[in-house]
Amino acid sequence: MDFISNAEATECIIPIYLRPMNSTPFTLAIHGGAGTILQSTMTAEKEQAYTSALHAALQSGTRLLESGGTALDAVTAAVESLENCPLFNAGKGSVFTHDGRHEMDASIMTGHNLASGSVAGVTGIRNPIRLARAVMEQSEHVLLAGKGAESFARSILVPFEEEAYFHDAFRHAQWQQALLDDKVVLDHTEKKFGTVGAVARDVHGHLAAATSTGGMTNKKWGRIGDSPIVGAGTYANDATCAISCTGHGEFFIQSVVAYDISCLMEYKGLTLQEACEEVVMKKLVERGGEGGLIAVDGRGNVCLPFNSDGMYRAWHAGNQSHVAIYK
Amino acid sequence: MDFISNAEATECIIPIYLRPMNSTPFTLAIHGGAGTILQSTMTAEKEQAYTSALHAALQSGTRLLESGGTALDAVTAAVESLENCPLFNAGKGSVFTHDGRHEMDASIMTGHNLASGSVAGVTGIRNPIRLARAVMEQSEHVLLAGKGAESFARSILVPFEEEAYFHDAFRHAQWQQALLDDKVVLDHTEKKFGTVGAVARDVHGHLAAATSTGGMTNKKWGRIGDSPIVGAGTYANDATCAISCTGHGEFFIQSVVAYDISCLMEYKGLTLQEACEEVVMKKLVERGGEGGLIAVDGRGNVCLPFNSDGMYRAWHAGNQSHVAIYK
Repeated sequence: MDFISNAEATECIIPIYLRPMNSTPFTLAIHGGAGTILQSTMTAEKEQAYTSALHAALQSGTRLLESGGTALDAVTAAVESLENCPLFNAGKGSVFTHDGRHEMDASIMTGHNLASGSVAGVTGIRNPIRLARAVMEQSEHVLLAGKGAESFARSILVPFEEEAYFHDAFRHAQWQQALLDDKVVLDHTEKKFGTVGAVARDVHGHLAAATSTGGMTNKKWGRIGDSPIVGAGTYANDATCAISCTGHGEFFIQSVVAYDISCLMEYKGLTLQEACEEVVMKKLVERGGEGGLIAVDGRGNVCLPFNSDGMYRAWHAGNQSHVAIYK
Repeated sequence: MDFISNAEATECIIPIYLRPMNSTPFTLAIHGGAGTILQSTMTAEKEQAYTSALHAALQSGTRLLESGGTALDAVTAAVESLENCPLFNAGKGSVFTHDGRHEMDASIMTGHNLASGSVAGVTGIRNPIRLARAVMEQSEHVLLAGKGAESFARSILVPFEEEAYFHDAFRHAQWQQALLDDKVVLDHTEKKFGTVGAVARDVHGHLAAATSTGGMTNKKWGRIGDSPIVGAGTYANDATCAISCTGHGEFFIQSVVAYDISCLMEYKGLTLQEACEEVVMKKLVERGGEGGLIAVDGRGNVCLPFNSDGMYRAWHAGNQSHVAIYK
């Protein structure tokens, strides 16, 4: 588990670049999914591609934060960047469902007023996180699903893409194999929980969290995981923390993971690190729930716990940016 | 707020009938929705119809509990009874969507292993709570939505009904009025949050919760409320409590209401009554979230808080059954 106290940020691993010190205490963390991600099965080329993509997504958020932008805009931009990258199972890189479609889920929440927006099982939306944000800002609801959510998207001119935009030869081969095996499988043959997410604390002291996913390969029956569920896959509250999860969604829903961390901080007085340890490394492990999450608290501390072999992740804290993949 | 300590059950209001005392400490509470339910707008005939229906639903659950049945079976039976009654906005009595359809949500959770099952936006299912339970017991998932959930229902032979089964002249008139007004409205002209639910503690000490709804009249865009969301509208954990909510779903999702009560008990040491008071009468009121919930804890205490004018409710505790509607 990576834990970065805002005061001890120089202890972080894998420094990518250093920025000149300044007084803006903003923090951003992102993830591109957790799971059986082993250095032994990774090529140098593939590792470089993931590292670059994570770095680019992190930068798209930090750029906004360092000029005084909001945590909400930063997590939106970072997740949008990950959705546009075919390496991650969200947006463009979404896996195939049993019917050969792409059904995506996303949610976003802002910590200063607990406003949130989510979409579940949407098809053809270029950036589901933008649609989730529109649900939050332009509708009276917080969760829209399926065809109805797509009608809402059309009514407010959210960009759609043709099927070809989401088509990827690698994903297609994964789906064909899953069809042959008649299995609902995770993102990769290496068992990866494909989800992307971002959490941030801006210079105004506000928190925000965003999560987006293409779900499970060959999924059927309109299965929805934890990503669009406020309290399970996503949560933000200025008084405690902002959380974005990635893992076996069913377990994350039943354990109400994101809100559990917030409650352990608010009601039991745990620190962000203690709460993350309790939920991800103890509770979820006991219940068989594999995965991880990224978290930031009101003081700008960052925590990136996962109980799987790896988690694609990057963070910017204490004026330093970092990217990591393995344990 | 009705609070019934298991030791003080004789203080309950509106006793309906007394059973001979025995030593089985089971408890059951049900609700049929909260909102602006005023005695001044109710006829004696209508009140009698609601009272009888609540009593019948309560009996369908207590009958199982007193013969040693499980909390899970009791909440399923009680909610099924309410779903079959056209007076309540769930199952047969579901309101019309913007498209003139009936899109129903339901969820169920059992406290001894935190297993849960939910369905969202399903059409034509006779008893959505049965389908939610099948998701829990017969699928590897916890939340299925829309057409996909209906395909799952067909695959396991869950009963469907024709459109005519759900047609009700009163609901149809409500929908036509809502279409004219171009408004997404609550269950009744009297502003009622139409949802049904049940929570129980069985003689084995296990808890369970179940919730089912037809949502909001004239709803569109595939809107989903808190009813199918574990942690928001439904939650059960033997270590703390079982909860089923009814109210303005958007607020209940953002406040993660059901799990919040569990956390206040587990992490802050509040009693069921104190936790219900904190969440329903303080937090939700401050945030503008109108509604209520029913709750039972591991000791068999019952609490039925609501911050609206009324809540259709009934409970059986300490060998006595009770039905109430107004504050």
